[in-house]
Amino acid sequence: MGSYWAFSQGEREAVYRAILARRDIRHFRPDPIPEEVLKRLYQAFHAAPSVGLTKPWAVVEIRERGTKEEVFALHQRARSQERALFQGKAQRVYDRLRLEGLLEAPLHLAVFQRPVPRSLGHQTMPETLTYSVVLAVGNLWIAARAEGIGVGWVSILDPEAVERLLGAPPGYRLVAYLCLGYPRAWPEEPLLKRAGWRHEEPLLRYRERFP
Amino acid sequence: MGSYWAFSQGEREAVYRAILARRDIRHFRPDPIPEEVLKRLYQAFHAAPSVGLTKPWAVVEIRERGTKEEVFALHQRARSQERALFQGKAQRVYDRLRLEGLLEAPLHLAVFQRPVPRSLGHQTMPETLTYSVVLAVGNLWIAARAEGIGVGWVSILDPEAVERLLGAPPGYRLVAYLCLGYPRAWPEEPLLKRAGWRHEEPLLRYRERFP
Repeated sequence: MGSYWAFSQGEREAVYRAILARRDIRHFRPDPIPEEVLKRLYQAFHAAPSVGLTKPWAVVEIRERGTKEEVFALHQRARSQERALFQGKAQRVYDRLRLEGLLEAPLHLAVFQRPVPRSLGHQTMPETLTYSVVLAVGNLWIAARAEGIGVGWVSILDPEAVERLLGAPPGYRLVAYLCLGYPRAWPEEPLLKRAGWRHEEPLLRYRERFP
Repeated sequence: MGSYWAFSQGEREAVYRAILARRDIRHFRPDPIPEEVLKRLYQAFHAAPSVGLTKPWAVVEIRERGTKEEVFALHQRARSQERALFQGKAQRVYDRLRLEGLLEAPLHLAVFQRPVPRSLGHQTMPETLTYSVVLAVGNLWIAARAEGIGVGWVSILDPEAVERLLGAPPGYRLVAYLCLGYPRAWPEEPLLKRAGWRHEEPLLRYRERFP
């Protein structure tokens, strides 16, 4: 065992496994997420690094079938628009892809950036406020993997339509729309890779300057 | 022990600890990061979820003193501009804050978003390409915690000045500038909290709709 601040080899491997075995899940079992588990996920979320310690986030939890169906309709509209951008084989692959699990997932989280008082660190790069919200999503995603809970990020959505649907106050901006639930399975590979959508490239890594 | 896909309680706790004991580090020891450790960190980075599996990132590693000093000068300029926005007690607190460890850290990583071919999922929310890069940084940050390595995100920088300095090709955009190294200590609390810069608020969490 490591101490609180030091990690044993087994603990370090568990952390890497949560990172490497994380998937974007699109097939969910209906079982709800227990509130005590959800609280732990939020603890991870809220512990994310945020610029100037602003924690510029807010979350709307969606459990009602009616709301899920409204979001699903928004997704269908965005998907059919995106589909038209692809032709031939790419479009056929696109048509076969499962790109969300909105109607199955027991819980949706709509993650917003909210207005915060000026703090330090976000004058030259104001986008770091938004990035802080993304880091919180990343924390939750990794914690969820360790809890056996799947997360799927649905980006094929008109964010302003979601903001209107959920009654977002002025200045609140949708950053991420997530489906959460116990997955039907953990895919060994990312679904897009398995479907032949894209092949992975090695990391681009340069020394001292761009070549 | 859990299987590859399932986590034992001890493994789950290790994952939460990596998330909760992660800090933004600004005091580094000079010891270099071994290449095999850096490779593991990159494995975590490259395993991040990315929209359409685009992996739209590229990294420049900076180890030379001269480059570090040039980046430090850019930071000093941005810091003095930001300082002028605060008055009275806030400015006195600001002046005492350590906001980077650029000259101490053995390694800097300048993390860029790079142009990628069109893929799926980023038509309605093109910003998800940038968010993918942020998620990769979050992965690396958590893996680094488990390795005993500190990461400090320096956001008080003019990103275009950094892009010019490092010779970024057209379409490459700085997302994060990171300092990496073994920390002098792991602060029990975030440094900004300890300095009294901000007090933490509870997570804003709503049900079904904004109130």
